[in-house]
Amino acid sequence: MNAPEKISLFDLRAWSAGQLAAIEQALSRWVASPVDAPAPAGLGDAMRYAVLDGGKRLRPLLVMAACAAVNGDAATALRPACAIELIHAYSLVHDDMPCMDNDVLRRGKPTVHVQYGEAQALLAGDALQALAFELLTPDDDSVDAPTQARLCRLLAQAAGYQGMAGGQAIDLASVGLPLTSAQLHEMHRLKTGAVLQASVMMGAACGAASPAALAALRDYGAAVGLAFQVVDDILDVTADAATLGKTAGKDAAQDKPTFVSLMGLQASQAYAQQLHAQALASLQASGLENTQALQALADMLVNRQH
Amino acid sequence: MNAPEKISLFDLRAWSAGQLAAIEQALSRWVASPVDAPAPAGLGDAMRYAVLDGGKRLRPLLVMAACAAVNGDAATALRPACAIELIHAYSLVHDDMPCMDNDVLRRGKPTVHVQYGEAQALLAGDALQALAFELLTPDDDSVDAPTQARLCRLLAQAAGYQGMAGGQAIDLASVGLPLTSAQLHEMHRLKTGAVLQASVMMGAACGAASPAALAALRDYGAAVGLAFQVVDDILDVTADAATLGKTAGKDAAQDKPTFVSLMGLQASQAYAQQLHAQALASLQASGLENTQALQALADMLVNRQH
Repeated sequence: MNAPEKISLFDLRAWSAGQLAAIEQALSRWVASPVDAPAPAGLGDAMRYAVLDGGKRLRPLLVMAACAAVNGDAATALRPACAIELIHAYSLVHDDMPCMDNDVLRRGKPTVHVQYGEAQALLAGDALQALAFELLTPDDDSVDAPTQARLCRLLAQAAGYQGMAGGQAIDLASVGLPLTSAQLHEMHRLKTGAVLQASVMMGAACGAASPAALAALRDYGAAVGLAFQVVDDILDVTADAATLGKTAGKDAAQDKPTFVSLMGLQASQAYAQQLHAQALASLQASGLENTQALQALADMLVNRQH
Repeated sequence: MNAPEKISLFDLRAWSAGQLAAIEQALSRWVASPVDAPAPAGLGDAMRYAVLDGGKRLRPLLVMAACAAVNGDAATALRPACAIELIHAYSLVHDDMPCMDNDVLRRGKPTVHVQYGEAQALLAGDALQALAFELLTPDDDSVDAPTQARLCRLLAQAAGYQGMAGGQAIDLASVGLPLTSAQLHEMHRLKTGAVLQASVMMGAACGAASPAALAALRDYGAAVGLAFQVVDDILDVTADAATLGKTAGKDAAQDKPTFVSLMGLQASQAYAQQLHAQALASLQASGLENTQALQALADMLVNRQH
């Protein structure tokens, strides 16, 4: 008989399943719901198409995990969890448009502009960004005002010119150019890192944590955000398209600078492990007790095959 | 000798000049300032190009006027004044894009996508929306948290699918279609009315006002928002291009439904006057004393020639 030796270990799959059920339910209730307040003229359809029924929900999971780490209120955290996913979803809608990456498929479905037209895709992205801030500012007593303000501040900074949009501008300008390591880091710190780090900090804002613990979580978020991108670049050359769910080798084909093109495959793999270790060390340094979910998410991000 | 008989009357021009000086200074400080925190890779240039050195700043003036009406704090109000202008500016950048109205000139200058490319225009609009929320959530004690949260809520609702983006979606779907009066009203209530009304309510959020006074200001904002659009439609057929600063008769040429096409010119003019009277009656009903600027802005909006 096999003893259930690992039964006391944190079960990421079970934890995620529970969180995802709540997240999906909240998203489908909040995204331009046709029942309480329908969005007009197809806009709501495009918004829901962009958000529902797809995606790994990594950012919402980071929010919920960070909330758990600070013993925060999970019902409160559902709002930033969904808000950050709306920001992610809007960025994909706009990124896919012909004037950007001109992608026609995402997660095996036609992209929003293919399905609903470019104008509606543009509007749906814009409306999703606004909705993210609406979710953070409920007009009742469910979330206190200082938390609402802090969440809006974190999200706005992560999404804007000093975050995601700024990183995309660097990306746009860097195709075909030789970037230094510092420039590549800066691009990814802004483009994907800022929103991943903000996910952690927004979850932490749903509870109480010392300044030192918050600083440690910020370090964790930075390490995990960067590791995510390094692993993405590794998988782009090592995974086949079937596993990856998207075209492999796409970065190289588009002549985009990547960690692999800059430092080589082996060094990139070592770098991902180093960032993983940094993330775990930051959790250790935080002094927080319930960091199992954050730890498991860091493990999953670095060891994922797609 | 002419006695200065009207010296006690409110001088909108002098008041506006003072407000505009502060607004322009704040915008140029806050929009992706190259000194404190430069936006990367041309993004900041595109953002500043979209916002600075142009525009009547009607929305910021409504914010400042409403703030004055509730004896609010003008330094606080500068933040929502600029934030709402960023939302307006981003909507123009996205509206002008080829997939929307495909306009190449605005205020006599090439539109953002002509000047900086479509991808940069898309990003600049996205980043301006995020920056609007960033302006509302300063990380210091300058604006209390409940006010920050309320301002974010008002702005998000006005910009999103139940506001501006929703109205644009109706507009998109309505070209060449016969709209009923109710549908035309709904489109404009969302498309331009929501942000104009939010300007008033955001200004009012910078001070203290009774629920009754706030309800009256909301009515004022609705009347002024609708009057603005009715007058726009009137000017589109009565003004010449030189006065208007844009192509006259454009709505009719694009077969867009307007108040004039629906109810005729004379009835539209009478309707504008009626809305103006409603706006003034709402100010009267508010019980607030310092409503001179709001009153003068309503007069100006209805009597403007461009």
